[in-house]
Amino acid sequence: MKRGTSRDIRTANRYEVLRRIIARSPTSRQELAAATGLSLPTVATLVGELLDLGMLTEVGFEESAGGRPRGLVAVDASGGALIGVDVAETYVRVELFDLALSVLARAEEDVHPGENRPEQVVAHVATAVGSVVARVGVADARVLGTGVSVPGQVDRDRGVCEYAPNWDWHDVPLLDLLALHIAHPLYLDNPLRAGAVAELWFGAARGRGDAVVVNLGTGVGAGLALGGGLHRGVSNSAGEWGHTTLVLDGRPCHCGNRGCVETYVGAPGIMRNLREVSPRSPLLHPEDQTATIDALARGAADADPVALEVVRNTARYLGAGIATLVNLLNPEVVVLGSWVAATLGEPLLHEVREAVGRHALGRPFAATEIVLSPIPNDPVCLGAATFALEGTLRSVGRRAGRRTAPART
Amino acid sequence: MKRGTSRDIRTANRYEVLRRIIARSPTSRQELAAATGLSLPTVATLVGELLDLGMLTEVGFEESAGGRPRGLVAVDASGGALIGVDVAETYVRVELFDLALSVLARAEEDVHPGENRPEQVVAHVATAVGSVVARVGVADARVLGTGVSVPGQVDRDRGVCEYAPNWDWHDVPLLDLLALHIAHPLYLDNPLRAGAVAELWFGAARGRGDAVVVNLGTGVGAGLALGGGLHRGVSNSAGEWGHTTLVLDGRPCHCGNRGCVETYVGAPGIMRNLREVSPRSPLLHPEDQTATIDALARGAADADPVALEVVRNTARYLGAGIATLVNLLNPEVVVLGSWVAATLGEPLLHEVREAVGRHALGRPFAATEIVLSPIPNDPVCLGAATFALEGTLRSVGRRAGRRTAPART
Repeated sequence: MKRGTSRDIRTANRYEVLRRIIARSPTSRQELAAATGLSLPTVATLVGELLDLGMLTEVGFEESAGGRPRGLVAVDASGGALIGVDVAETYVRVELFDLALSVLARAEEDVHPGENRPEQVVAHVATAVGSVVARVGVADARVLGTGVSVPGQVDRDRGVCEYAPNWDWHDVPLLDLLALHIAHPLYLDNPLRAGAVAELWFGAARGRGDAVVVNLGTGVGAGLALGGGLHRGVSNSAGEWGHTTLVLDGRPCHCGNRGCVETYVGAPGIMRNLREVSPRSPLLHPEDQTATIDALARGAADADPVALEVVRNTARYLGAGIATLVNLLNPEVVVLGSWVAATLGEPLLHEVREAVGRHALGRPFAATEIVLSPIPNDPVCLGAATFALEGTLRSVGRRAGRRTAPART
Repeated sequence: MKRGTSRDIRTANRYEVLRRIIARSPTSRQELAAATGLSLPTVATLVGELLDLGMLTEVGFEESAGGRPRGLVAVDASGGALIGVDVAETYVRVELFDLALSVLARAEEDVHPGENRPEQVVAHVATAVGSVVARVGVADARVLGTGVSVPGQVDRDRGVCEYAPNWDWHDVPLLDLLALHIAHPLYLDNPLRAGAVAELWFGAARGRGDAVVVNLGTGVGAGLALGGGLHRGVSNSAGEWGHTTLVLDGRPCHCGNRGCVETYVGAPGIMRNLREVSPRSPLLHPEDQTATIDALARGAADADPVALEVVRNTARYLGAGIATLVNLLNPEVVVLGSWVAATLGEPLLHEVREAVGRHALGRPFAATEIVLSPIPNDPVCLGAATFALEGTLRSVGRRAGRRTAPART
């Protein structure tokens, strides 16, 4: 067990209680105690704090079997707004949520090839955030925070994107740049973690002990939800499955290694798979990943033999790479998410399941379900918004200046 | 957070407290509370139970700064014996421990090539267990339990080895077979988990948040110690790194897949690496893995060019495979253990570090230390003994028939 300070534990417990209430409102303190393993007095204290913060509201009573009626609490959807930002190589998506994490407004900006300088990306984010806030008419003060996901390795504490391989970013102080345009608190992380948290809260990993959330976009990676929580690793860079070796001495990768999973199953890798099958295929839009993946999806639906072969070849690589995750981590569920997975959908999933079965060991394979993300809209925006919520609860503790808090007993 | 029953939580807490005391005796209840995050009253209750069981003893007082003197407790080494069994493809090792986990006796049996029927292996284990018990003169009743590690995937609850790839075992009811010869309680698991727990308690993973314990023997795998605890996966088969793909369509593996890590860095894989460099090398003992690895180690120490090249090639495969673990899990430490790592030692470690650096991403690589296991003797025996200890504490709770226990608060 990792040792945390009392305040860390209190923040984590406060967050866990709020998360349960958001996932299921209304609920009673007794149900929360049973669901979290915390004692009833501890839950009552945490619920009291969240009521004081205006994040929860009392909504009446339920009869309990033979006992006193139990007070019910629910999340107060109007208790604050959260913004989630999904910065990807080809788009910036922004969603504004109420405190129940329902989407109130959404904006999207295309990021054109070559538009990869930090100032350009920051401008897109600022525009889209301004747009959702204006649309909903939320006063800035009501926005508790904005979570920003960028496709790279991030130092959360410093708000720095240390390395974004597809953009060749090194040590970009992204939150400082964004703070010039956005007034409320900002929190940085990446799509692997945002996607995994979204699946844990609202998607296919909900209630599962161990889940792997595979992110298939321009870059690829795997968010790891182990033991019901996010596995970040010692320097918050766990999940770089896209840069694990699938073919020793295989295709060169911009990370400097060769044969990385990403070079076979990221969008540019899939374009290369297409070129290998049919170099002059009309499905190929050389400078446009989105158009190419869209064309492959339409082609597969129309039983175009080239499209089917490319999907099959991609699934073969993907299957071997996912079998590595299955054999190594023995998860209950593997979730395929992000835009490439959403676009290629069922035909890809079907082939992937077969390919994983060929590569994985029997025991872990039998225990693993492989599904497409069931979250409508963009799971990464949702997950990024939860990071803003987590940060808000942390800073609440700080403002209150609590120094002593009961330890776990 | 995974939800456990109150009894699960109580058993886990009892085990955690005992583990801390074994790791550091004498200690006070106050230190234990600080180290575990449990409340002082909870620690006091658990310590009281362990005193009643004769596992601990009171050993006096220490002055605390300005307060009452604090009572000190220590593990009672004579409070019971534990046996750890490491069944490998080429040997069976058995160690008998006192309750402080110091080795009191040790026995080893060679397992000759072809001697892989369950009855043959069981006979070796029974002989070696009988030998250590006779040597120490421990009455059977004082042996709290025997933990058995076998090189395969196990169903712990049923005591069945579901699949041991190197022996082609399928659903072998190993504990039932052993119970015909051994009277005290038996607990089954595998070397990945046993090795990882040994490193967590006494070795290079001690006090580390996330650690990967690479087991290099005939078969290979990786014990995962994440968040300070063992990651077992949903069906206790996590860690099968040996059967992750390193070279798509590469060397055939007896698991049915091709290009598995194990086929390049397990002892038979290393023999193949040697054959590729020099098919008729005198270092090669075609039917004897142990003799071949020993010869390679001696050759490398004598700067024999063939031996050096084989170590380098092996390290290159191993480095790419370990980089996968580093990129995916972002551990604080990677520990190389088991007999191949111990035999090839520093020359292998040196080459592996360089190879991981070539394949891993900068951020996770910078955060990861790569070391040889510092545990003298056999970490797998030690880890297996801790499983017997854990099982004992679980059955204590069961015998006492406690139905209500305070939840975590």
